[in-house]
Amino acid sequence: MTKYDPSIIEDQIIAVLRAWGLAPARAATTAAVMVDTDLAGIDSHGISMLPEYYRLIEKGLLNASAEPVIVHDTPTTALIDADNGLGHAVTVHAMHLASSKAAQQGIAAVAIRRSNHFGAAGYYARIAAELGQIGLVTSTTRTMAVVPTRATSPLLGTNPLAFSAPTQNSDEPFLLDMSTSTVAVNKVKVYEYRDTPLPQGWVLDGEGRSVTSPRDAYVQLRAQRAGGLSPLGGSEELSSYKGYGLAVMVQILAGVLSGSAFAPFRDPNGPGDIGHLCLVIDPGAFGDAATFRESVTQIVATLRAHTPISPDRPVQVAGDRERIVRTQRLADGIPVSEKLAGQIRGICSQTGAAFLL
Amino acid sequence: MTKYDPSIIEDQIIAVLRAWGLAPARAATTAAVMVDTDLAGIDSHGISMLPEYYRLIEKGLLNASAEPVIVHDTPTTALIDADNGLGHAVTVHAMHLASSKAAQQGIAAVAIRRSNHFGAAGYYARIAAELGQIGLVTSTTRTMAVVPTRATSPLLGTNPLAFSAPTQNSDEPFLLDMSTSTVAVNKVKVYEYRDTPLPQGWVLDGEGRSVTSPRDAYVQLRAQRAGGLSPLGGSEELSSYKGYGLAVMVQILAGVLSGSAFAPFRDPNGPGDIGHLCLVIDPGAFGDAATFRESVTQIVATLRAHTPISPDRPVQVAGDRERIVRTQRLADGIPVSEKLAGQIRGICSQTGAAFLL
Repeated sequence: MTKYDPSIIEDQIIAVLRAWGLAPARAATTAAVMVDTDLAGIDSHGISMLPEYYRLIEKGLLNASAEPVIVHDTPTTALIDADNGLGHAVTVHAMHLASSKAAQQGIAAVAIRRSNHFGAAGYYARIAAELGQIGLVTSTTRTMAVVPTRATSPLLGTNPLAFSAPTQNSDEPFLLDMSTSTVAVNKVKVYEYRDTPLPQGWVLDGEGRSVTSPRDAYVQLRAQRAGGLSPLGGSEELSSYKGYGLAVMVQILAGVLSGSAFAPFRDPNGPGDIGHLCLVIDPGAFGDAATFRESVTQIVATLRAHTPISPDRPVQVAGDRERIVRTQRLADGIPVSEKLAGQIRGICSQTGAAFLL
Repeated sequence: MTKYDPSIIEDQIIAVLRAWGLAPARAATTAAVMVDTDLAGIDSHGISMLPEYYRLIEKGLLNASAEPVIVHDTPTTALIDADNGLGHAVTVHAMHLASSKAAQQGIAAVAIRRSNHFGAAGYYARIAAELGQIGLVTSTTRTMAVVPTRATSPLLGTNPLAFSAPTQNSDEPFLLDMSTSTVAVNKVKVYEYRDTPLPQGWVLDGEGRSVTSPRDAYVQLRAQRAGGLSPLGGSEELSSYKGYGLAVMVQILAGVLSGSAFAPFRDPNGPGDIGHLCLVIDPGAFGDAATFRESVTQIVATLRAHTPISPDRPVQVAGDRERIVRTQRLADGIPVSEKLAGQIRGICSQTGAAFLL
């Protein structure tokens, strides 16, 4: 692993995106999202996605030069057609649109259809918190990975849900960013890479039994036929119907409301047709905004100060872990594996982008 | 267990509520919510709550003759002060208010402060679905029962979240109604009643180990000192930080936005000061409402038709289980234990209400 200055990572991403045909502003916004995601330690959703995006572009499944259009617009809602482009820049735009509507109207939601992967949902929810508002962001996903409770095979995506609320410190919002499965596909990848047995309850086979061999689990997840990730809860006894229900809720909010695909009905060789939803609430519409931030601050402070089982593992609040990694990586740089750097070198040489790593 | 016709249960609840001083319309609405909850099989949140409500009234902690007031009102938002009354009727009102605002504006949210227990959150979310809209309902709770990931003792309530969306069949909305803990307190009560060991991961002691003795677990939950319910996920390895994060999300949406209490800061001998949030989205604000219902119908039909691990345990969709129980109980009646009937008889004789069971 070589560590790179975040500005080099960002320039590298911009160079590649520009070579693919993204407009300059859109490339810059997308790169800012991706590098921030790497800074937060969510390595699976930052620069490491470039090879996958390139694969989709090469196959004609993703429109690098997409020009999103607002197809429906009211004072409190909007629907954006992402023109089959990457999801990052269009969602940043959607969050700002929802935020300004909410600032006027108290609450607003913007749905996005015909989009693709947008990285980590938390980035977008946090935009609202930085503006003193509550942000709720959901997205469908391309792959069927999650097995409904009692079922033999996957039908749902990891359908993430992110929620953010401001505190008195604008750098420290409450920031929940979670898949509705017990773990995301990427966590299984990491265990496979390290050849470490998986914990019970992460991945199930076609009979509902835990798969602990990381290799078997990963092969099974790629095949999308039998078994897959468990919904949050892990097993029926531990209420996995709740995680499963949340995954369907996300499918309805992000997929149905926007008019995007439900994975089982989608042509597996067609475009992603992914949907997102950005919902913003302005606390000032219900009471005093400063009091709201003060109360959230008190709650997170109380949680953090609570007695931990072991002193070296303090009680955290959603967003803390990412903040710790960010501080570290701003100092030390962002790690990129030799393998990933090699893949990016390949993309650069094929597309004429400068290779900067 | 004697089974009673739902209309008798409803009349009994109305008689008691009227004797306590609830206005006739408010008593009728509250009873309708409670009997519907019993019909859905959520026995812990229906008529069985009367003794607890009476205890609070007797202690002067709950205002039976509350007159809720809208304290803040905009075209898309409102804040209602529940006047320390029961939560049922005021939340039905809030949902209808949010629904009519959303019908006009596309999206709306109504927050309620200074409320008390409102039964099962799903009842209110379903009101929106019956009107062709999406409903999201959250609530804080009185008791600290849930232990944050890594912590030694409880700080959060079971903070429920309910979500409903309409299908083409108005009797069969998608209806998720869940606590953000692995299980609710009531499930532990049921195991204690049957003296059956608890599954691993439901209740934790002060060291984060599973408590499987139902007696120990129940005593510990009542004490609210060390250990308690695990957040959804069950353990850190199985991502309980997600359930914990969802509980905080609910606290912010239902508690902070409405200006209601965070349990650790509340006088344990004072009023509940519970908060609720009712959020409604009109699918027609994003596209064709009929297409929306059709898509949700297709998704739930696909999930239900999916191959189950064992044919006698079909794949269900949120709301199915309650629908099955409702059909049964409409035919067979609602079971009430001798013990509960005796408690209600006592309340009736003390308050002058007719005893009808």
